[in-house]
Formats: sequence, C-alpha cells, structure tokens
Amino acid sequence: MRSHTAYMTFETNARRELIRITEQVQAAVEEAEIEEGMALVSAMHITAGVWVNDDEPGLHEDVLEWLDKIAPPSWTPATGDVASELLPEGGDYRHHRGGEDNGDAHLKNLLVHHQAIVPVTAGRLDLGPWQQVFYCEFDGGRPKRLVIKAIGE
Amino acid sequence: MRSHTAYMTFETNARRELIRITEQVQAAVEEAEIEEGMALVSAMHITAGVWVNDDEPGLHEDVLEWLDKIAPPSWTPATGDVASELLPEGGDYRHHRGGEDNGDAHLKNLLVHHQAIVPVTAGRLDLGPWQQVFYCEFDGGRPKRLVIKAIGE
Amino acid sequence: MRSHTAYMTFETNARRELIRITEQVQAAVEEAEIEEGMALVSAMHITAGVWVNDDEPGLHEDVLEWLDKIAPPSWTPATGDVASELLPEGGDYRHHRGGEDNGDAHLKNLLVHHQAIVPVTAGRLDLGPWQQVFYCEFDGGRPKRLVIKAIGE
Repeated sequence: MRSHTAYMTFETNARRELIRITEQVQAAVEEAEIEEGMALVSAMHITAGVWVNDDEPGLHEDVLEWLDKIAPPSWTPATGDVASELLPEGGDYRHHRGGEDNGDAHLKNLLVHHQAIVPVTAGRLDLGPWQQVFYCEFDGGRPKRLVIKAIGE
Repeated sequence: MRSHTAYMTFETNARRELIRITEQVQAAVEEAEIEEGMALVSAMHITAGVWVNDDEPGLHEDVLEWLDKIAPPSWTPATGDVASELLPEGGDYRHHRGGEDNGDAHLKNLLVHHQAIVPVTAGRLDLGPWQQVFYCEFDGGRPKRLVIKAIGE
Repeated sequence: MRSHTAYMTFETNARRELIRITEQVQAAVEEAEIEEGMALVSAMHITAGVWVNDDEPGLHEDVLEWLDKIAPPSWTPATGDVASELLPEGGDYRHHRGGEDNGDAHLKNLLVHHQAIVPVTAGRLDLGPWQQVFYCEFDGGRPKRLVIKAIGE
C-alpha cells in the first residue's frame, strides 16, 4: 500500500466562498503514484467544508444564500415548541459569549460536512462528468488548511 | 492491498426516491475478495446522495417531505436579515437561469451527502442491526451512476 | 496493509448529547500500529452521528438547539407549496405510526452524517488544532455502538 499526504492553505478575501480544487486533488494522487485507491480531502478547520458538486456560478450563489437561511449568521428564535425552550441568554449564539462571531460557520461546516473521499481508478479521480471538488470557506480572511491523504497502490 | 470497483446505474420513475442497495454493496465486497477494509459508496451525480439508515417506508416518506421543507423545489425568500440581502433576481434559484429546474436536488445532495463508507470486517459489511445503505435519487427519470470502490485485504 | 477494528458502546443519560472521542480514536490507531492511513469512525445506529468540530460547550448547546429547529421532535407543517402537499395523516411523523417517537433523531443523523474519516500521519490523527471527534447521541438512554476501522501501514 502506498500513501501520500499533501496540504493546501487558503486565504480568501471573502468571508464565504467556494474554491475549486479538483485539479489539486488529482495532482496529489499523481504524486502518490496510486492507480487504485482513495483520496480523502478534509478541511482542517471547524468553519470550512468540502463539497463535490457542479462548477456552476449561479448554483454557488444559491448555495451560499441557502446556507445563510438554514444556518443564519444572527441567531433567530425557533418557531417550534421544543426548540423555543432552548432560548439562549441575550438572543445570540452561546458560542459568541467568548467574543467569537462565527457561530454560523460551525453550523455550515456541519451541513456541508468537512470532508469527501474521491475514489481513484486507473490513476484518475473516478468522478461523474459534472462532479468537481470544492473547498467551502465560511469564515475566511485568514490562512486555513486542508489535508489530502491518498492511499492505494 | 486488494481493490475492486463496481458501478451501478439507476433510472427511477419517480423524481425523488430511496433505493436500498445494501445487498449490491455486499456483493461488490465479495467480488473484491476482501476480508478487512472499507467500501466507499459514492453517487457520481450532483443531484443524488447515499444514506445509511432504517428501511422503514414511513421514515422514507418523512425524509423526502422534510428534505422538501429544507431544500424546497421553489425558491423561497429568507426570513432572516442577512439572507434577505441575497435575494436573487426573479425570485427563483440562480441555477435555473440556464433552463435547469433541479436547484433543490443540488441542495438535497448537500444535505444527504453524496457518499458513505462502509467498514468491512470478516468479509461482511460491518453495519448495525438496522443500518441499510440507500441510493437517494432527487432528480430521477434518467440513467444515473454510482461507484462502489472496495479496498482492503 | 494493516487493519484494526475497535468498538465503543455509549449509554447516555440525556436523550441528546455530544461526547468527545478523539482520544479513543487515537488509541485505536495505536493498537492498529499504523503510521500512515485512515481511521473510519462510524455510528452503528440510525439515530446517532459523528461530528468533527470544536470542543466548546456553548457551541455544543447551540448545535443541539439548532438541530431541534431544523429537525424538530414534533412534526410541523411546511410553509412552502410543494412540501405542504406531502402532509402526513394525523400531523405526526409517519415513522411514529408504529409506536416510535424518535423520527427527529433519524433526521438529525442525516444532517450530522453518521461517520467521519480521520487521516493518520506519522502515527497521529492528522487533525487541525481545534478539531475534535464527537459521538453525537440523538436518542440516548440505551446502549449504542460505534465502530472504528483503521487501515494503513
């Protein structure tokens, strides 16, 4: 079994941004000299994710808007009975009590998931015709790392 | 290390449907002749997912309904301040500007995640007693592929 | 290729709870005597998950509250047109027709995802500085299992 580890660092200008990294993952697989196996692509931060989907700019705007609806930057009261009982003091995310302002980015990490695994067949990422790998930044403006771990033979 | 790759093609009548594939994943592991390792089960399309859960028809209806609530087929305005500022022109998903009508299916792909990895122990999928593997179609009615990549020894 | 399988059993007092298991995953990797590879951490139940994020108690309360908003314990009608047509009889999750009361826990399993894979580099979990691995219980009070499968060499 061969293995190879590569790291990438991102520093986005925007707070929330999707960055295509399919080519970098393929390059890591080639450095690994793996014909058959898997490449794990995993954000090393808790406010970022990895998504495999379409490289269509309108969709990316839709996704960032929709994630803001589901995991809003400002805490909002629940409409349901059970969640309403869990009201935090001050009407803000509890995570913000220590001075943080990125509670929503942690929730977006949960929704998107922080990692994906790409199968490798005959030395190539075995993706469908529209599948591209994206690093999803939810709290940018500072250096953040991602690890690619390829195993196989 | 052994590896084995199998592909499945689905063409559902319904637009949204869950299809049990546990047995096919187990068969791929047996073809791989792997006793210890992992089987990656990954949709090759950007409007489908893979979910490991209960084979209970009521739950499946609940899940399809609930996914429609969270990732609705028709774009809906946000209630929160921040997301409201991200209003698309025309009140529809931006992804639909090119003639597509499956914006919600991409969001459901994100929620469900497009893949799962099943551990393999003593030649069997090492699942809990109620865990079954499902292919989740969100934009059916046409042929769509899934890859199973088993590695181990 | 080496492989090693470890199981953990949880029995929480609370119905919903996050339990840090980073150290147990690292211990399984050491038992496996793996220097380079991956450790799959996967809940064996359909009402639990695995999340890699910050060990910050306020955030954990935020997450449990937010999951109750998105996947509420009591079924709630949809606001959108399409989901509204999918109204279940009796205004409750269909999954509850058989006497179950944990429909929300299955939906939370879907949101959180039931597994994560941790890369292993030089014998250590290759995590970012704030990344910890958590078992996420959504229907506790009874024994539930998790599998750790480490492969590599």
